[in-house]
Amino acid sequence: MIKRIAILGSTGSIGTQALEIIAENPDKFEAYTLTANRNADLLIRQARQFQPEFVVIADEEKYAYVKENLSDLPIKVFAGSKAIAEVAEMQSIDIVLAAMVGYSGLAPTISAIKAGKTIALANKETLVVAGEIICSLAEIHKTPILPVDSEHSAIFQCLAGEAFNQIEKLILTASGGPFRTKSISELQDVTKREALKHPNWDMGAKITIDSATMMNKGFEVIEAKWLFGIPVEKIDVLIHPQSIIHSMVQFVDGSVKAQLGLPDMKLPIQYAMAYPDRLANNYPRLNFADYPSLTFEKPDLKKFLHLALAYHAIEKGGNMPCIVNAANEVAIVAFLQDKIRFTDMADIIETAMQKAAFVEKPIYDDYVASDSETRQIVREIIIKSF
Amino acid sequence: MIKRIAILGSTGSIGTQALEIIAENPDKFEAYTLTANRNADLLIRQARQFQPEFVVIADEEKYAYVKENLSDLPIKVFAGSKAIAEVAEMQSIDIVLAAMVGYSGLAPTISAIKAGKTIALANKETLVVAGEIICSLAEIHKTPILPVDSEHSAIFQCLAGEAFNQIEKLILTASGGPFRTKSISELQDVTKREALKHPNWDMGAKITIDSATMMNKGFEVIEAKWLFGIPVEKIDVLIHPQSIIHSMVQFVDGSVKAQLGLPDMKLPIQYAMAYPDRLANNYPRLNFADYPSLTFEKPDLKKFLHLALAYHAIEKGGNMPCIVNAANEVAIVAFLQDKIRFTDMADIIETAMQKAAFVEKPIYDDYVASDSETRQIVREIIIKSF
Repeated sequence: MIKRIAILGSTGSIGTQALEIIAENPDKFEAYTLTANRNADLLIRQARQFQPEFVVIADEEKYAYVKENLSDLPIKVFAGSKAIAEVAEMQSIDIVLAAMVGYSGLAPTISAIKAGKTIALANKETLVVAGEIICSLAEIHKTPILPVDSEHSAIFQCLAGEAFNQIEKLILTASGGPFRTKSISELQDVTKREALKHPNWDMGAKITIDSATMMNKGFEVIEAKWLFGIPVEKIDVLIHPQSIIHSMVQFVDGSVKAQLGLPDMKLPIQYAMAYPDRLANNYPRLNFADYPSLTFEKPDLKKFLHLALAYHAIEKGGNMPCIVNAANEVAIVAFLQDKIRFTDMADIIETAMQKAAFVEKPIYDDYVASDSETRQIVREIIIKSF
Repeated sequence: MIKRIAILGSTGSIGTQALEIIAENPDKFEAYTLTANRNADLLIRQARQFQPEFVVIADEEKYAYVKENLSDLPIKVFAGSKAIAEVAEMQSIDIVLAAMVGYSGLAPTISAIKAGKTIALANKETLVVAGEIICSLAEIHKTPILPVDSEHSAIFQCLAGEAFNQIEKLILTASGGPFRTKSISELQDVTKREALKHPNWDMGAKITIDSATMMNKGFEVIEAKWLFGIPVEKIDVLIHPQSIIHSMVQFVDGSVKAQLGLPDMKLPIQYAMAYPDRLANNYPRLNFADYPSLTFEKPDLKKFLHLALAYHAIEKGGNMPCIVNAANEVAIVAFLQDKIRFTDMADIIETAMQKAAFVEKPIYDDYVASDSETRQIVREIIIKSF
């Protein structure tokens, strides 16, 4: 049976790799729906190649352009974020690959969960911001959520055939990013260019900065808590610069299982798409002759303040992770626009955590309000102070 | 439900650790039958502590001594290897832990398989010598064979929830033993004392020497072939001196799963006994702060001739692994008696492989004959040449 895939965020790093997998496995997958935020040209090229049923561009100003450039093909074209949420719940879709960047992935993912679609979740903000709601919705609608993140896919693979009540600890590995060996004082002067150079993974700009600050890993801790139902005190972060062990699970008997591989996002994307099968492929294999030594160190929470802030946020609970996520997104944009320094980002997020209204038991509307309030607070901080 | 365990070889390294696990989990396991080769005093102490239903001493000369020392307890005492095979097939037993050393484990293991008992297999010679017969018997009698070896347990754990037809490669890790860093010429002069010092594992003398020669790993390759039904060309050996990664499986999608832990045989013994559950315990946990670097290297087959001989034997097939096993056992005894040097062992095995009669499709009686013929050949070589 061919699985029909809706890729939310097809022009991003995950989306384009998912399309490569579909192209490699035409007997297994069909690109049924493609959505993009604003990269109209790439979306048009993808649509011409994969001939999906539906195409949606979030940016409504680009609708006419996309529509016109696909007018010779029988592809239905829509625009706007509401349309994205609508196509995510269509009956004919088997898997929704939620690969949009940032907070915008939340609403369409909720639609897809309510429609009972299998979710291949690459958008970590969905669980970071609204993990509690997402998880209870997934339970109500019996919707499987399969992780696409390399680390969570590793844990998910290690949990195959194991009982969830026998988990003692999750160990999320982290490369430590480009600044692992820099001192705290050196971090002040790092440039955008340096922060965008990740040692092992080739990803989008937002996630690459999140790796440099280790906020990425903080979000993954939160995501793991929700995905696997594990309290945050049982989730450790371990720096492993080679990024070969993608994460580990320690069981109640002390046995540890790890998933390893070359740093290649196609493997976890493919695993989620093909689950519970594994797809044979000819991607390069891990060769231990190239990795004669795998090393490990504890993360320095005084240096990687973002990671500490993420732990604080999930321990505090409520809408605090939502506040951190919103503040982080705005701070990264400001950093990429050269408005603030690298080390300013953590300070700004910490200030936002103090200023934004805390809601202990948020409903969906609280997240929306909190996200919007936090962004406003951060913009004001940046305008005033920088 | 309490599982009733028959421990064949209760006074050995695996047997005594299995009894520790039973003592730690009286609500889960019962020591129902204990058998020993010739360590009557320890067998008596164990019987007094665990009060099994049956006790067997292989050495018939020690029967009266054991019987007398247990006469105040309602324990049935038998002697001789035939009795061991008989108690292994008793109806009231749930699991037979086959932990006898060497070739002598074969006959009782076959009895237990024919009786459909779940086998926790620590005696690797059983599969090395007669893997084909054992596997076809296990299939006919639908007898589960659970590995107790650390490496095979690791692979077995990594295969939980995975399909066997999706295995691309097994990677057996090896410590490399005490002589990993010695040159080929230095090996000539190593002493018994040095060979008996294993860097990571505390085991019996025979297995410790097998680790020093890496014959142990060669046997594990053969064992893995039979246990998991994987052709030998898909089984790699990787030297990993820290013995933290206990082995790995590479799947058809390139994903690698590994099982890690401190070098402690109790974990795999317990896993086999409790399978498919995991038993909570308070054994020391793996802490990456103590293992900041895990290293890997290819084994040098010109130095570790035993490993090369084992590969040759399983590639040749038939009774060749049986010949290698018998020759190896006799050579180790001679080395431990200071009759031959460390490096003589491989030469002797190679000569035996040339001299003993090759049988392409052996039946059980051929193994018995071949084992006996090979031992005779090796004894003669040693008498004549050393």
